[in-house]
Amino acid sequence: MNTDAVIEQLANSRETGIGRLTDLLRIQSVSTDPAFASHIEHGAAWVDEQLREIGLDSAIHETAGHPAVIARTRPEQAPPDAPRVLFYGHYDVQPADPIDLWDTPPFEPTVRDGAIVARGASDDKGQVCCFLEALRAWMTAHGKLPVHVTVLIEGEEEMGSVNLPPFLEQHRDLLQADVALVSDTTMWDTPNGPRPAIIFGLRGLLYFDVQLHGPSRDLHSGVYGAAVPNPATILTRVLGGLFDESNAVTIPGFYDDVIVLTDEQRAAWRNVPFDESQFLGAIGLEQGHGEDGYSTIERRWARPSCDVNGLYGGYGGAGAKTIIPSFAGAKVSFRLASNQDPDKIAVVFTDWLKSHDVAGLEWRITEHGRARPVIVSTDSPHIAAARRAIEQASGQQPLLVREGATIPVIADFQSTLGLDTLLIGFGLSNDRIHAPNEKFDLSCFDLGCRTHALLLAELAK
Amino acid sequence: MNTDAVIEQLANSRETGIGRLTDLLRIQSVSTDPAFASHIEHGAAWVDEQLREIGLDSAIHETAGHPAVIARTRPEQAPPDAPRVLFYGHYDVQPADPIDLWDTPPFEPTVRDGAIVARGASDDKGQVCCFLEALRAWMTAHGKLPVHVTVLIEGEEEMGSVNLPPFLEQHRDLLQADVALVSDTTMWDTPNGPRPAIIFGLRGLLYFDVQLHGPSRDLHSGVYGAAVPNPATILTRVLGGLFDESNAVTIPGFYDDVIVLTDEQRAAWRNVPFDESQFLGAIGLEQGHGEDGYSTIERRWARPSCDVNGLYGGYGGAGAKTIIPSFAGAKVSFRLASNQDPDKIAVVFTDWLKSHDVAGLEWRITEHGRARPVIVSTDSPHIAAARRAIEQASGQQPLLVREGATIPVIADFQSTLGLDTLLIGFGLSNDRIHAPNEKFDLSCFDLGCRTHALLLAELAK
Repeated sequence: MNTDAVIEQLANSRETGIGRLTDLLRIQSVSTDPAFASHIEHGAAWVDEQLREIGLDSAIHETAGHPAVIARTRPEQAPPDAPRVLFYGHYDVQPADPIDLWDTPPFEPTVRDGAIVARGASDDKGQVCCFLEALRAWMTAHGKLPVHVTVLIEGEEEMGSVNLPPFLEQHRDLLQADVALVSDTTMWDTPNGPRPAIIFGLRGLLYFDVQLHGPSRDLHSGVYGAAVPNPATILTRVLGGLFDESNAVTIPGFYDDVIVLTDEQRAAWRNVPFDESQFLGAIGLEQGHGEDGYSTIERRWARPSCDVNGLYGGYGGAGAKTIIPSFAGAKVSFRLASNQDPDKIAVVFTDWLKSHDVAGLEWRITEHGRARPVIVSTDSPHIAAARRAIEQASGQQPLLVREGATIPVIADFQSTLGLDTLLIGFGLSNDRIHAPNEKFDLSCFDLGCRTHALLLAELAK
Repeated sequence: MNTDAVIEQLANSRETGIGRLTDLLRIQSVSTDPAFASHIEHGAAWVDEQLREIGLDSAIHETAGHPAVIARTRPEQAPPDAPRVLFYGHYDVQPADPIDLWDTPPFEPTVRDGAIVARGASDDKGQVCCFLEALRAWMTAHGKLPVHVTVLIEGEEEMGSVNLPPFLEQHRDLLQADVALVSDTTMWDTPNGPRPAIIFGLRGLLYFDVQLHGPSRDLHSGVYGAAVPNPATILTRVLGGLFDESNAVTIPGFYDDVIVLTDEQRAAWRNVPFDESQFLGAIGLEQGHGEDGYSTIERRWARPSCDVNGLYGGYGGAGAKTIIPSFAGAKVSFRLASNQDPDKIAVVFTDWLKSHDVAGLEWRITEHGRARPVIVSTDSPHIAAARRAIEQASGQQPLLVREGATIPVIADFQSTLGLDTLLIGFGLSNDRIHAPNEKFDLSCFDLGCRTHALLLAELAK
């Protein structure tokens, strides 16, 4: 089947395609906050309807959490001996707050400076739509696809995909494929601009809400100051000990399973085109920060991180309120380097927290997500097909890189479905994902649609 | 002039007196939050109107911040040679949040279990009303008072009375007196119940909002984790170092001016009736906490404290948000022991903050209040008069104690007006001041009215 007709169809349907993305971005499908439950339902319904309209056999499936959509080509829609591709994406998004820092409302998509601005524009709705537009263009141009496709779009990626592993087990038959395909990453920033990248490694994730509870109510800091344990003070005292002088994490056992980088790897990574001052300057920083003895690329790709994602408790409003708060809390998360086991790290972290003398205060620890790190083989025929598709679509040689972020499902594709995953992303590092004014460049949208259209043909070869 | 007629008048006007207090408690005079500015104006106007109605010569005075009310007896309203008493109180209140922890709305006063529940009930509106009711009863019974009275009711005590010192300078003539009188403290909890107390020492206060700013926006913790400085992590690292292993503050120079307790003092204070397990049990704690080597009373009365009053920044909502926040903040305050100089402590604290390596992040430090500690003489004729009045009103010998809290103006009365202050409070330790469900027992209201009525007569002797 001719790809020229597909590429032409993509060009013709560009405006309606952007319109479809805009519709999806209007849906406030924030997964982590129960207040948005009806918007999550709406998100799943929208995806299901699109896939039916494209011509696939689609259905919404319940999970133990938010629903997932699975759609498949019918047998007659692809050559009988063609390979099977499982495309994965997510329709859920991060919370939009701090909402007052958005220049336009987060769920009212606006095109500014050649980019569509909205929560989820780049992560992951825009990238999901690239694949849906490619499918639609193939079906419009040819009435069929060069490969068998299964599309799985879930609604809990931003809360750690906790319910997806049993769902994959349960629907193992429906999801059988030869390779998985995911667009939820970014291109690589070189000193000469962004360059398409194929990601072969991702870090894992472990996320906790950590609260320290004490007095039965907020106390007057004059009457009680210096007499009772202050949960906010003691929480900073404990969390303040997360790092040592060399900026290494102090939790016993934390680094036990981290794979030591070889000299060859380190030498190869020094040749990756990367402008650190540009990387930092784009986010208003002059100085990086992290574990001594490692380069920024090494720390992002092959070393674990530990971050306090938020602090709360007591008075945080204008002016002064002289209290000892009854409790204080923090969000604390880890990105896990290849071979670290989140189950083990969860234990050593909570043990470490509880090993502190907190003067009789009480810990309340809640987990919000656990995902394994992943490394995929770089010399598969699928990677070769992806290289060819990217070269045709962009005129550029893709880079093979790792990524510091996490896509929980990739490890499960390996363990449950026996699939390697092609990670090809079209976002840019300045897309402000998870932050106010998230955006997705329309040129990235175009490239994504084109690449996916060509990749379907290349994977058939 | 006969005090019996005044006491009888107080009994007769009890219900209308409680009604007046209820009216004042309905006014949302939160001083620290600019959103409440109109309520502050309302508070000042209410106080001014009451004092006029009582018969004093009253006026609202502008300050550099919220207005203050000054009212004085006219010359013919007291014997020419009678002493002059300056009564001080405040009509402003602490913020009401966390509002969802109130059983009834904070500005809809309700009587429950013999106490009036509302923000400011005990601190300080209820106690101000005790004095106003005493004045009113004297004026109703006799048309005059046994002493000359000046009443100063300000609107910025809960934000550290920062504008009051120049105001005292400016109105020095209006405020001339022989002794100051303040009811903004509590009775003393003995193992046998609360006992009236005269306070002869207060700690000072220093309050900061401390923010650490970094990236120009919230960052994805996967993409940037382990590569850039995290303001929340580094803020906990800095504040986590506020205390050493012995729970002493680590800031260099912090303890330099603290007066070392004598063995005699320590021995005397060991005899103060105090039930520590009751003190802690009332707030849901089993274990106290503070500087090693000092008793709870010593730490509250004669040692400084340092507290994190609140933490904020990044994500604090439900579930997970995987960000490196662009900034994080904390409210940090100190209660200063006798002889500590807040100007010096402000310098050593901010120097200490800035001495940390924060990987290029930027401090934004805002001060919200600075007050000196104070000790008043315990063998004055005014203290003797207060002892007599309290004995008559309550049938109990008052205790002479110190207090860990701060009333900023007391030190200024000493330095600017040359006045010692009588600190006689009618609150209880379980009044939940600065916390949800603040209350003032009606029995305390009665005792306060009666004591002030009798004290005016005793001060004339």
